[in-house]
Amino acid sequence: MDGNKDAMTKETMMAVRKVRAAPGLDYVQTDVPAPADDELLLKVRACSMCGTDIHIYNWESPWSESRFVPPKTLGHEVNGEVIAVGRSVRGFEIGDSVSAESHIPDWTCSLCKQGQMHICENVKFFGIDVNGFFAPYAVMPATNAWKNPASLKPEIATLKESIGNSVYTVSEGHVSGKNVVIFGLGPTGLFATGIAKKLGAACVITVGGTDLHRRIAKQMGADAVINRNEEDVLTRIREETDGRGPDVVLEMSGAVPALQQSLDIVRPTGIVCVLGLPTTIVPLDISKKLVLKDVTLRGVYGRRIWDTWKITSDLLDNRKLDISPIITHRLQLSNFEEGIAAMKAGNCGKVVMFPGKE
Amino acid sequence: MDGNKDAMTKETMMAVRKVRAAPGLDYVQTDVPAPADDELLLKVRACSMCGTDIHIYNWESPWSESRFVPPKTLGHEVNGEVIAVGRSVRGFEIGDSVSAESHIPDWTCSLCKQGQMHICENVKFFGIDVNGFFAPYAVMPATNAWKNPASLKPEIATLKESIGNSVYTVSEGHVSGKNVVIFGLGPTGLFATGIAKKLGAACVITVGGTDLHRRIAKQMGADAVINRNEEDVLTRIREETDGRGPDVVLEMSGAVPALQQSLDIVRPTGIVCVLGLPTTIVPLDISKKLVLKDVTLRGVYGRRIWDTWKITSDLLDNRKLDISPIITHRLQLSNFEEGIAAMKAGNCGKVVMFPGKE
Amino acid sequence: MDGNKDAMTKETMMAVRKVRAAPGLDYVQTDVPAPADDELLLKVRACSMCGTDIHIYNWESPWSESRFVPPKTLGHEVNGEVIAVGRSVRGFEIGDSVSAESHIPDWTCSLCKQGQMHICENVKFFGIDVNGFFAPYAVMPATNAWKNPASLKPEIATLKESIGNSVYTVSEGHVSGKNVVIFGLGPTGLFATGIAKKLGAACVITVGGTDLHRRIAKQMGADAVINRNEEDVLTRIREETDGRGPDVVLEMSGAVPALQQSLDIVRPTGIVCVLGLPTTIVPLDISKKLVLKDVTLRGVYGRRIWDTWKITSDLLDNRKLDISPIITHRLQLSNFEEGIAAMKAGNCGKVVMFPGKE
Amino acid sequence: MDGNKDAMTKETMMAVRKVRAAPGLDYVQTDVPAPADDELLLKVRACSMCGTDIHIYNWESPWSESRFVPPKTLGHEVNGEVIAVGRSVRGFEIGDSVSAESHIPDWTCSLCKQGQMHICENVKFFGIDVNGFFAPYAVMPATNAWKNPASLKPEIATLKESIGNSVYTVSEGHVSGKNVVIFGLGPTGLFATGIAKKLGAACVITVGGTDLHRRIAKQMGADAVINRNEEDVLTRIREETDGRGPDVVLEMSGAVPALQQSLDIVRPTGIVCVLGLPTTIVPLDISKKLVLKDVTLRGVYGRRIWDTWKITSDLLDNRKLDISPIITHRLQLSNFEEGIAAMKAGNCGKVVMFPGKE
Repeated sequence: MDGNKDAMTKETMMAVRKVRAAPGLDYVQTDVPAPADDELLLKVRACSMCGTDIHIYNWESPWSESRFVPPKTLGHEVNGEVIAVGRSVRGFEIGDSVSAESHIPDWTCSLCKQGQMHICENVKFFGIDVNGFFAPYAVMPATNAWKNPASLKPEIATLKESIGNSVYTVSEGHVSGKNVVIFGLGPTGLFATGIAKKLGAACVITVGGTDLHRRIAKQMGADAVINRNEEDVLTRIREETDGRGPDVVLEMSGAVPALQQSLDIVRPTGIVCVLGLPTTIVPLDISKKLVLKDVTLRGVYGRRIWDTWKITSDLLDNRKLDISPIITHRLQLSNFEEGIAAMKAGNCGKVVMFPGKE
Repeated sequence: MDGNKDAMTKETMMAVRKVRAAPGLDYVQTDVPAPADDELLLKVRACSMCGTDIHIYNWESPWSESRFVPPKTLGHEVNGEVIAVGRSVRGFEIGDSVSAESHIPDWTCSLCKQGQMHICENVKFFGIDVNGFFAPYAVMPATNAWKNPASLKPEIATLKESIGNSVYTVSEGHVSGKNVVIFGLGPTGLFATGIAKKLGAACVITVGGTDLHRRIAKQMGADAVINRNEEDVLTRIREETDGRGPDVVLEMSGAVPALQQSLDIVRPTGIVCVLGLPTTIVPLDISKKLVLKDVTLRGVYGRRIWDTWKITSDLLDNRKLDISPIITHRLQLSNFEEGIAAMKAGNCGKVVMFPGKE
Repeated sequence: MDGNKDAMTKETMMAVRKVRAAPGLDYVQTDVPAPADDELLLKVRACSMCGTDIHIYNWESPWSESRFVPPKTLGHEVNGEVIAVGRSVRGFEIGDSVSAESHIPDWTCSLCKQGQMHICENVKFFGIDVNGFFAPYAVMPATNAWKNPASLKPEIATLKESIGNSVYTVSEGHVSGKNVVIFGLGPTGLFATGIAKKLGAACVITVGGTDLHRRIAKQMGADAVINRNEEDVLTRIREETDGRGPDVVLEMSGAVPALQQSLDIVRPTGIVCVLGLPTTIVPLDISKKLVLKDVTLRGVYGRRIWDTWKITSDLLDNRKLDISPIITHRLQLSNFEEGIAAMKAGNCGKVVMFPGKE
Repeated sequence: MDGNKDAMTKETMMAVRKVRAAPGLDYVQTDVPAPADDELLLKVRACSMCGTDIHIYNWESPWSESRFVPPKTLGHEVNGEVIAVGRSVRGFEIGDSVSAESHIPDWTCSLCKQGQMHICENVKFFGIDVNGFFAPYAVMPATNAWKNPASLKPEIATLKESIGNSVYTVSEGHVSGKNVVIFGLGPTGLFATGIAKKLGAACVITVGGTDLHRRIAKQMGADAVINRNEEDVLTRIREETDGRGPDVVLEMSGAVPALQQSLDIVRPTGIVCVLGLPTTIVPLDISKKLVLKDVTLRGVYGRRIWDTWKITSDLLDNRKLDISPIITHRLQLSNFEEGIAAMKAGNCGKVVMFPGKE
């Protein structure tokens, strides 16, 4: 470690951790980590919550028990300042602003060697397999770090991982010049709305969400915002697309009926990209809705490393994609329970937290 | 019509027709048709049977009743010699050998205008919506005709439409350099075996079929032929693909378990192309098998007009793709019941018929 | 012809024609044409000039002499109302607003059969091989017609062919999310500026043109507008692209130095699309600028039929791409010499003409 | 280093090195290197010569002087056995058979972060910037190593880097189902012949080479082999492609006339991939041969990391691509001058060398 007095003298810190195999999270004291030879030590400037964090908070069976071994610091979305650099690290310096790719690939398995690092055979995750970022300090392998321009605000930089999910989904939809329907207005759907517009979608129609979500969707540039409770979804989509259905559907809700409607409404030879994770088996009319329509159903997982990050950064760093309307909560890390509550209530965008002064 | 005495004096002919809304087909007398301004009159040299013909023979409810209005000549696969040319036709001459694209597009709808003529909004089919080709003479719009080299054998040329299904499916799988699994060894699966090898698949593994089908698959170049009744399909596929699963799966059986196994076994980021038509709703584990594997499920319908025909013809006209092992029956048209019986028994390849001497 | 009194009684009309093999054009009387079986008769609502028309006006050797046989009506860009329909035509009705694809394919050659109708082996052109559209009435094969919504203004609808050149070029550049440089600010460059922005380019930088052209480029959404006479082009482009060069270059000027600079400045693994036609042999440093940079140089010709028209129409019919700033001249057809003069002077956008009251 | 007695006790070795800034190479004593933390120590089992080595041997100006700083061990193609592993290396073990990617990326520059590591902004090369592999022992960063199956012969494994050039070129040509012409029958052209056949090319026509090269091309599966000195190249290619020209041309000779002929003969909408490096500026008829033909000219550099390696390995490890006819010389490393002489004479395939017993 290239000696950094500030870090060295701070030997302990307060972090949001799961300390036992049970529901809940604790704000407890833990050691400031030291970076290994291939790692960076970050001073966390902002971190943000994801649905996965809620599953772990709730300690949902059987997934949590089988996958998460306490005690560990939570969180996989982060922006930090590099304050120490492992001795074999190349390409990063003290003072750099970095975001973290949350999938830690081994870089050597068969899938990694085909450039598919996002789905590495031996992938590990921050905040699940190793300590995460809901803390004032954190370490990470340098090979998982993305360098940001100094000017990028921490509350935006922490969201790059999450926005990347949406960028990958939108990219696979090849939306440029196309009519696009987005099912689901959680953060990934809201991000996708703005991204699809910036990447040249002819028109973006959103379905679902709460009043708050629909208001944000309009701010992000949605051309039509459908309220599932008040309108017939398919009729309305047909009206908005000259009766032909959209070229592209992005299913980001995880709801079985939304996935079925995606295949109902997409035009023949169109594409449905699925990021939402249904929690049950999905009955689909494969003959009529997929084969006889010559349609593509594309599962999307994570973000391509680093192709998706490049596009994400171009959108956020240099262009005018303003995702700040999607940040509905800005909290001190110590108030994390307020964010958990907002996410459980289901009526928020992204929750960003700041370790602030400890 | 450019006056053709031979055609003009032949005023009636014997054809295979559905004459009433009931099971069965009749070999009956009907008029030799005259070509309209935009049509070709063909002397049929060979025609061939497809599964659709069996559905119509059986008069399966509700599809047949809702779709097929008797009386009409059956058949949509053909090779014929042009013996008369409508006056507004360009590009065809008397003596040309032509095959027929069975999807008759209107060339003017929204999908046609996007180059998706194979899935025209107002598509009609030979042998369903208009008279087909199980006859010594037949007419067709010149815009649906594909010209063959004079040297191509009629029994091969009549199969181009059917082979085109497989070529389109294999093409969408982008098999060059890839490991490919084919589920289903009906004619489309058998064609696909030979096509995938010729288009550069690293290895082709087939699943299913009868002893006859498996023998033909080997003749077509399959690297591994799995007998579903004697082996554990997934275990065996894993063994043949270094434990990783194939890059590409072509589902050509229409069986629900085969489609489910396709998603089970395809490697992450791989593609499953579906040509087979399941007759029921298909329950799929979309989260685990599609989204979390970053996999694509591609429905394939018909053949691209004319891109697929070009590839098909390159394979058959100029190269050494020999599909003759797949032709298990060569019959006089008047013996069509023999072909129907073979197809119902499910242990045949393609059935080709010849109108023969009139 | 489905009998249309209005057309039938108008037996002659005044049209802009080349009547002898010499420079100049004449506004002379000629017959109102009657549509053949496969043709439409149009009442021309607007037509527009292209550089090719100027070459023919000037009677430039040897091209004009070898290619154009007078007498013939000029013009290949048009919007008209269908006033009569040939008897074998499907899909068009009296009253339809249509634009014309100027490349008349034979639909039967090897390239057409591969879906490459835009580069048909036996292609003919309106206004060169057959009578064009600088007239109050004109005929065209229905298979070359594109139907517009009734609401589209004639001055926009006549430009679809020309805009299509730019749409095809921009599409081949896959600009969504990319930094784009456009060399040349004639109409195709100006169209491309607006199109690239709408199709999701991260940033569009234009090079060249006159003060007028640069002003229009800004109106079309250019992020940076470089004046070749006052700035160092490559230095400025580097500054605008973080020192790395653009991902995509569109060469629309036809100038040899611009093509060379395109290869100089494009980033490694980028693409240069060339629509401009250099009039001389071009010396290129293929090793250093193409091979060692892993770069693609893509020649672009015409417009894909009908894929490009679909995208073009989506941009113009349903979206907010406003190309009206590019129309600098609106003239009565009889004043065509004014348009010729403007185009020769090189300081105009598009010249649109109206046959007006007869 | 994980202690390996065999390596440790061998403190010096004999290697092929450039020891001063002048023509020639020396077989001299040098130290056995020790691997850094992120490196592998290889016992070289086979290494092979490339044209670049000859440029350095000849000490060609100005390139060599500006780029190569003696003393350094030559060679960038290798197969070795891992005999020691740096302490931060993951994914490799003692005993592994590895080949080396010769482009050493920094993994952190803008191009690397877009997945374009093969053209890294700060790329270094073995045998130019750092010590190479013409030696019994060598070190390399583990991140540049590709693991081979134990069964792969060293003389094949050392060629993977070189074959990868051809695989990348053939891949960019998308040859599956296409007619392919290859200009140039040096090793990359000969490799490409076999690769194109295996990846599904409909027909492969080679142009050029010596009698030896043409004999090998036939062994690799060429459908037609044109002798430039005895036949009119373009006439003969037209004959072999139904008068239409090939869909794909691979220019691997570096000769200016070959590149010009590539653009002459490729069919409209076809693609020309260029791997050969012309030594002069190339005059091209861009208007007529590129733009008006809607043709793509694709410069190809290096190999994609690791996509190309995956395809290369699938071809060599698991399939029947037998490239052994292309190995014309197998030498002891100490006899390297014999290989240099063969390559200078221009009548050889690949020269493979074995450090053998020292």
